[in-house]
Amino acid sequence: MRKLYHGAAFYPELWGKDVVAKDIVHMQEIGINVVRIGEFIWSFIEPEEGKIDVSYLIDVIKRLNDHGIDTVLCTPTATPPIWLSYQHSERMHVNKNGTIMSHGARQHVCTNNAFFREKAAIITEALAKSLGKLPGVIAWQLDNEFKCHVGECYCDTCKSEWHGWLKRKYKTIEQLNKAWGTQIWSQYYQSFEQIPQPNTTPFLHNASLQTMYKLFTHEKIAEFAKEQATIIRSYSDIPITHNATVFFDLDQALLFENLDFASFDTYAVKENASSYFMLCDLYRNIKKNTPFWLMETSTSFSASLERYAAPHPDGYLQAEAVYAYAAGAEGFCYWLWRQQRTGCEITHGSVISAWGKPTIGYQNVLEVERVRKELEPLLLSTKPMQAEVAICYSDRAKAYFQTEPFNGIQYKQILTGFYERFISLGIYRDIIMEQAELDGYKLLFTPFIPYLSDEYIQKAKAFVENGGIWIAGPLTGGRSGEHAIHTDCALGELETLAEVDTLFTNPLDGTNTFGEAFGITAELGLWSTIFDTKKGENIGVIKEGLGTGYSFIKETKRGRGKIVMLGSMPLGEQGEKMIEALILHYAKEAAINRDMETTPGTVLIPRIGEAATYWVAVNMNGKTGEITVPENSMEWRSNKKLVSGTYEIPPFDYRVIKYDF
Amino acid sequence: MRKLYHGAAFYPELWGKDVVAKDIVHMQEIGINVVRIGEFIWSFIEPEEGKIDVSYLIDVIKRLNDHGIDTVLCTPTATPPIWLSYQHSERMHVNKNGTIMSHGARQHVCTNNAFFREKAAIITEALAKSLGKLPGVIAWQLDNEFKCHVGECYCDTCKSEWHGWLKRKYKTIEQLNKAWGTQIWSQYYQSFEQIPQPNTTPFLHNASLQTMYKLFTHEKIAEFAKEQATIIRSYSDIPITHNATVFFDLDQALLFENLDFASFDTYAVKENASSYFMLCDLYRNIKKNTPFWLMETSTSFSASLERYAAPHPDGYLQAEAVYAYAAGAEGFCYWLWRQQRTGCEITHGSVISAWGKPTIGYQNVLEVERVRKELEPLLLSTKPMQAEVAICYSDRAKAYFQTEPFNGIQYKQILTGFYERFISLGIYRDIIMEQAELDGYKLLFTPFIPYLSDEYIQKAKAFVENGGIWIAGPLTGGRSGEHAIHTDCALGELETLAEVDTLFTNPLDGTNTFGEAFGITAELGLWSTIFDTKKGENIGVIKEGLGTGYSFIKETKRGRGKIVMLGSMPLGEQGEKMIEALILHYAKEAAINRDMETTPGTVLIPRIGEAATYWVAVNMNGKTGEITVPENSMEWRSNKKLVSGTYEIPPFDYRVIKYDF
Amino acid sequence: MRKLYHGAAFYPELWGKDVVAKDIVHMQEIGINVVRIGEFIWSFIEPEEGKIDVSYLIDVIKRLNDHGIDTVLCTPTATPPIWLSYQHSERMHVNKNGTIMSHGARQHVCTNNAFFREKAAIITEALAKSLGKLPGVIAWQLDNEFKCHVGECYCDTCKSEWHGWLKRKYKTIEQLNKAWGTQIWSQYYQSFEQIPQPNTTPFLHNASLQTMYKLFTHEKIAEFAKEQATIIRSYSDIPITHNATVFFDLDQALLFENLDFASFDTYAVKENASSYFMLCDLYRNIKKNTPFWLMETSTSFSASLERYAAPHPDGYLQAEAVYAYAAGAEGFCYWLWRQQRTGCEITHGSVISAWGKPTIGYQNVLEVERVRKELEPLLLSTKPMQAEVAICYSDRAKAYFQTEPFNGIQYKQILTGFYERFISLGIYRDIIMEQAELDGYKLLFTPFIPYLSDEYIQKAKAFVENGGIWIAGPLTGGRSGEHAIHTDCALGELETLAEVDTLFTNPLDGTNTFGEAFGITAELGLWSTIFDTKKGENIGVIKEGLGTGYSFIKETKRGRGKIVMLGSMPLGEQGEKMIEALILHYAKEAAINRDMETTPGTVLIPRIGEAATYWVAVNMNGKTGEITVPENSMEWRSNKKLVSGTYEIPPFDYRVIKYDF
Repeated sequence: MRKLYHGAAFYPELWGKDVVAKDIVHMQEIGINVVRIGEFIWSFIEPEEGKIDVSYLIDVIKRLNDHGIDTVLCTPTATPPIWLSYQHSERMHVNKNGTIMSHGARQHVCTNNAFFREKAAIITEALAKSLGKLPGVIAWQLDNEFKCHVGECYCDTCKSEWHGWLKRKYKTIEQLNKAWGTQIWSQYYQSFEQIPQPNTTPFLHNASLQTMYKLFTHEKIAEFAKEQATIIRSYSDIPITHNATVFFDLDQALLFENLDFASFDTYAVKENASSYFMLCDLYRNIKKNTPFWLMETSTSFSASLERYAAPHPDGYLQAEAVYAYAAGAEGFCYWLWRQQRTGCEITHGSVISAWGKPTIGYQNVLEVERVRKELEPLLLSTKPMQAEVAICYSDRAKAYFQTEPFNGIQYKQILTGFYERFISLGIYRDIIMEQAELDGYKLLFTPFIPYLSDEYIQKAKAFVENGGIWIAGPLTGGRSGEHAIHTDCALGELETLAEVDTLFTNPLDGTNTFGEAFGITAELGLWSTIFDTKKGENIGVIKEGLGTGYSFIKETKRGRGKIVMLGSMPLGEQGEKMIEALILHYAKEAAINRDMETTPGTVLIPRIGEAATYWVAVNMNGKTGEITVPENSMEWRSNKKLVSGTYEIPPFDYRVIKYDF
Repeated sequence: MRKLYHGAAFYPELWGKDVVAKDIVHMQEIGINVVRIGEFIWSFIEPEEGKIDVSYLIDVIKRLNDHGIDTVLCTPTATPPIWLSYQHSERMHVNKNGTIMSHGARQHVCTNNAFFREKAAIITEALAKSLGKLPGVIAWQLDNEFKCHVGECYCDTCKSEWHGWLKRKYKTIEQLNKAWGTQIWSQYYQSFEQIPQPNTTPFLHNASLQTMYKLFTHEKIAEFAKEQATIIRSYSDIPITHNATVFFDLDQALLFENLDFASFDTYAVKENASSYFMLCDLYRNIKKNTPFWLMETSTSFSASLERYAAPHPDGYLQAEAVYAYAAGAEGFCYWLWRQQRTGCEITHGSVISAWGKPTIGYQNVLEVERVRKELEPLLLSTKPMQAEVAICYSDRAKAYFQTEPFNGIQYKQILTGFYERFISLGIYRDIIMEQAELDGYKLLFTPFIPYLSDEYIQKAKAFVENGGIWIAGPLTGGRSGEHAIHTDCALGELETLAEVDTLFTNPLDGTNTFGEAFGITAELGLWSTIFDTKKGENIGVIKEGLGTGYSFIKETKRGRGKIVMLGSMPLGEQGEKMIEALILHYAKEAAINRDMETTPGTVLIPRIGEAATYWVAVNMNGKTGEITVPENSMEWRSNKKLVSGTYEIPPFDYRVIKYDF
Repeated sequence: MRKLYHGAAFYPELWGKDVVAKDIVHMQEIGINVVRIGEFIWSFIEPEEGKIDVSYLIDVIKRLNDHGIDTVLCTPTATPPIWLSYQHSERMHVNKNGTIMSHGARQHVCTNNAFFREKAAIITEALAKSLGKLPGVIAWQLDNEFKCHVGECYCDTCKSEWHGWLKRKYKTIEQLNKAWGTQIWSQYYQSFEQIPQPNTTPFLHNASLQTMYKLFTHEKIAEFAKEQATIIRSYSDIPITHNATVFFDLDQALLFENLDFASFDTYAVKENASSYFMLCDLYRNIKKNTPFWLMETSTSFSASLERYAAPHPDGYLQAEAVYAYAAGAEGFCYWLWRQQRTGCEITHGSVISAWGKPTIGYQNVLEVERVRKELEPLLLSTKPMQAEVAICYSDRAKAYFQTEPFNGIQYKQILTGFYERFISLGIYRDIIMEQAELDGYKLLFTPFIPYLSDEYIQKAKAFVENGGIWIAGPLTGGRSGEHAIHTDCALGELETLAEVDTLFTNPLDGTNTFGEAFGITAELGLWSTIFDTKKGENIGVIKEGLGTGYSFIKETKRGRGKIVMLGSMPLGEQGEKMIEALILHYAKEAAINRDMETTPGTVLIPRIGEAATYWVAVNMNGKTGEITVPENSMEWRSNKKLVSGTYEIPPFDYRVIKYDF
């Protein structure tokens, strides 16, 4: 990492040359050192099929470079031009009810359509060839927010790709029938061609069919990304990314496997700051040891024709920037530089208005630039510390919950609630993908992962045997890789490994069932696993309601570590306390480092330098916070030694505490 | 009735022979003496069109019989195989918006499609021929929950059947035009072929067209049931039923006319216990003097991928079983024996789990078996007493309210609210179909029946003239058989018979109108009938608001009885009190037997033996209840004489009080 | 104006001759002096294509005339007969999702379809020819409630008309691309034929495309109305109207331009009385100096199969009639005379029931007739005074808000809330169309008009320079005529004219921002314009939150008048007070006449006679009100002089105060 980037999305194709020239000067003045361009530019550079002209882009990139501004260059495949879609309804995205999308927004064309793929390859090749080595172009972004508006497509191309995908996966129709248990409801198929897409039917489709269609969709879009990346790599060496986020219908592990660095978009409002922390903590870890980018965020508020979010309070933006940079971001970028004049996002917050004047967010952008400069020397000479606590994230789990939401579970929301307990306790944590290695972690959480693969179980087993503590649940392990129920025991391999006996699996909400653990009594809820008390340690026991006397938290020693089964979801304020007590209990057992502490609303990110650690404390709630530091601390900016004790952090401000090894 | 059945739905086609063998032994051990099989088995026994093989079923039935377990055998027509639906969109169910259903759930094929009817006849004949006389097969169930997922179909087959149905009903298009008043909004039709199905149109369709399409749908599914029953009867003498419930789009009077006994499914949670009572009270009376079956209920909770209900508290299941058996059930059956491994109901409660272990409901199933054995001698030697109070149920009324919900009325919910007043008062009652005879009743309620047929009015008139008291309303009688407004007076024949003068019909909700009756003042609501005070007795009078000074409850003597017109719906807690006062008032006048009384939450069902009545009192709310008994009572189990007074009934327990004539 | 009309919609085609004869006599008896007939009669008079027979209508009109009852005659084009729609799905209205409407309600046929237009011309010509000069026929109504059920149509006819409309408007595709900024999201079009209708797409369509499709729809229905009016005028001299209302998808300025007088329908309940006042104040001004008609209102309550409104309290109807007549109505008419027997409006309130008896509203109708007679001499010799305060209404603004509702704004609701401040203050006001001249006004309000045309700005500029005070905003002026953002400054020409500098435009809701003006502090909300404080008068200043220290209300002197920019929406009770303070402040400055005052719930309409003004005060809330009168007042009915002071007005009653010049 050679610098901290501070950037904005820029649309030179929408404005005349004069405006563009002025904007470039303006950017330079205020410290914008990178722009992202081109993600919707297809019709501008290929207005008629085959007539591609990228000279305008070349010119803009050169002028940007002349002003010290680098470029992240995008492929424009999210918005196919009208010549691709007009009178070709067979190329369009089709929703679950069979409605064919109209031209006029984004993602209206099916990304599996062969003609689209061909034309996408041509335009991307043209860009890579002509612009891939231009000075100032520092990265590629593929497309834009894959699957942000639409997920599964139900067009005929997808139907036939789906059948091919199934054939490759299951080999014979008999194996599919067996895996999905299709004799249920006489769903039994005679050939792959007969297998429906999961569109409208009188009740629900088979869980296996639903989930497999989602995984198929995940794989196909990752395949498209790989195809595009391969084209680019023939002409250009610079790294490739995609601006994803956890809301989209993607398997990000698959997607980023073939890309070079991770980036994401977020428009979380201040009230939802924990979502912001979680995303930084996740994207830092998707490509280990490679800085991530926050590719899009608002200078103040997001908006489109039909809704807007509340603007940020003054000061919040700089706190966000400090958090992101400290947490490992190389780039912190706005959507967008200049407010749109037309379209459906004309109200969206920006750096300057459509008439070229500062917006409500402008002053905050200047503040971001100030802290960026301040922090750059420190951040270039240190890197974010790996946490000792890991929480597992899984887009496949998200797909399982989409098929089977139990009583309305949304994966991202419920995981955020769980994650907030760590924020609340001030315990530094990584969010890691299922595929990530577990080296260096002491405490592993895998909440809300219905299906644990064999590989995962083997990896976690090794982690435990080497001394790790693994807390599994709630809602983890009860489904097979085919989204079916295990037939050996409730939780399959996990149950065997944990050496527990599951008695029952059933909902507890609405039954007035209460459990006790760590001296706290809380109501229990969600689909739960109730354990026999005979084997192992009974950490949490049901005191009242269904399953009274049985266990809902079990602990099993294994090798040098432990497996802890969290069978149910403690509810309400007492439930939050119980989860916090559980985290603290095992954090202590695992000897998790807790040198610094802050008051709620002020968050910590540790960075590691050559001979010291640096704890960046940012106040995010806008109310004066406090940090408590140990002996041997110094304040980094002033380089003053601190006595152990408590120090103030002003609203939205930050301090860096240097702490020698 | 030779025994009390305790059963479960069983899917031998989904599990290997070993599992099936073990399950049969397990069932026998815990007292399951009947299973229901085959309702989704079509693709298993006819995997390719025309290749039917039922040998596996024969084998399973024999093995069940060897273990003393009887079988209710189903026709599998709710789930047509893929060879019937693949590439034949014209055979599929089509919804109101024109969406064609996909294969993959149930009821995806139109039951009026000729090819479907032909194939359904073949598979049912094959089953009837081969299995209809096997030892242990004690009953047939047709299909499964007709019209539970989808109601009216809008496919082309239905369009042409609809035109034929209309032609048969109205003979000439002129008669239809007149009956429906089609000159309104220029809807006038020149031929039957022009008459639309009531699909999407800019506003609402004509009420007559909407309601007739519902009645057409009711008749067609009853016709299919009759067709299937006829095939079975050629080969098998055992009785035929169908597992209906009041939520489905059926005219159950029509449907059960051609079947041999009534059965139903319910998954009401404890909080909705009155719905459970109501269903038992209804299905007992659909086929008079023939025991009914509760064909499906949960051992603990119902669930599918997208939602689940709260599990029952321990003890509730046995209370349900006692209520059902006492109320006239021959069978009390679970859905299902073994939790599904795949599909969309993998979370649904069961007797044993997918891995063969007891579920949270298992212990309760054992308790059911205990009370079944306990009660069997009593229940086989007595039968449920006919009530003196009858409340009329009408699926045609349900159709009227679907077309015309006024301000959101749902027939089942509003009727349940009315029914709860009887539960609350502890008055024993029958729910009877419109078609039922009224012999033996003293008090008749017909609430929420917009259309009263001439036959009904004649029958009720005779009932009144012979001394009965008939309470009509709210919302009863204001519509004709064509779902039109009467033109002679507001309530047509009913008004003439009751010798009242309706002044106005209009809504009262939102007008702050209050009425007084039986010394109670309550707000009045819903679409109301306001009567002139001149003729007859003014039982309820409007004291404030619209119609002040006029009457909303009228009483008219007729022959030896009375007609009481309840013109409006008393609202809120005071409204409930007013309805209870009305019921009590006329119950007293009609000299309704109230020998026993219980505290709320404990319910009573009287049974009649050779020389005594037996009042079964079940506690359903899980809090110790009380029963007050008269002189000459005995406790049946202990055969001990009781002094008149109050006795406790433990939570979810029951007592039987024998009371000599 | 020669008389006050008191009327009802009448459907002689639905009832036999005897019923019709009785009804005519009945109407005459109670003072109904006009009926509206024929708007749904098409299939009755042309049951087969081309076989037109209007003799029944002629006969009815003659009989009505014989009984002193005039006729408003309708064209029946809202309900095309089955021979027009059967097997011609290409003629039907198509909704946004592509669903083709079924025959069976109203407006099921696309009004742009050529065959429909041809047949509509024929039936209207036939009516005009045969009935246009019949004695007693006093007016025509075109069709019925254009676009009340369905707005934009997405059929193929509309697609091709749309392309033609765009071609006429933009001349070249390049100009359209530029105007709409279609390079955004690669929407760029190569030809007019490629431009989609704004149907289902993965996210939102371009704002310009959306709004233009609405304006196209507005123009096409106005074109149809003009086409129909032209046919009528060849045969008939009597005036033509249409029963519109603000809920429908119409540009009423365009529509009424070619019609002779304005009329509207309303079914507002008493709780929504301000909506009733607003409609009267609007329709009075659509055709200046021409009395309007209230063509449809309920005698008590509106209803259809799926919902009903609360009935009016007794007395409210006569208060409505007094308000309408005093505010300039020539006609006050009910929908409907006799309750429908069939169809989907069988529950709707009426004068008499389907069985010919008085309804709950009947007595109130008699009261209306009483006040009508009482007021007629006064109202025929005076006319409503033009107000000094004008509030601008714009159906184009409504279209802009449909495309861009910000956070859920509904134009009619938000405008009504603003209008209520004037009612609350008792300030007499006109609601005027954008196109209206401003002569005679002193105070002009243009709230919620995103796009102000150049003509409007010129007109308002002249108004200001001549001494008027113009209060612009909230949410006014920020969009161009193409529904785009200005690029010179935030509010374009308006900002230049007002000589203010807009700093920021952004939402304020959810940011805890508070402003102060006129001594009142209120929270600020909605999409807001924040002004620099440097130029002009800072009337309202932000005290806390976003934009603290900047201005949200600016005042600029210009010529002899002022422009006041209201940049934000004051919220809550304090916000209402702030708006009222603003109105009062400028009303005082503009020397608005406030001779009379009433307590809230009693409203005033001034009328002007030869030598005096007459203030009609009506109590609308049903609680005794008060009016405070100046010296030189007289009570008109008694012709008694009043000393200045306060007088009571009984519930739902009225007084007329004569006040000499």
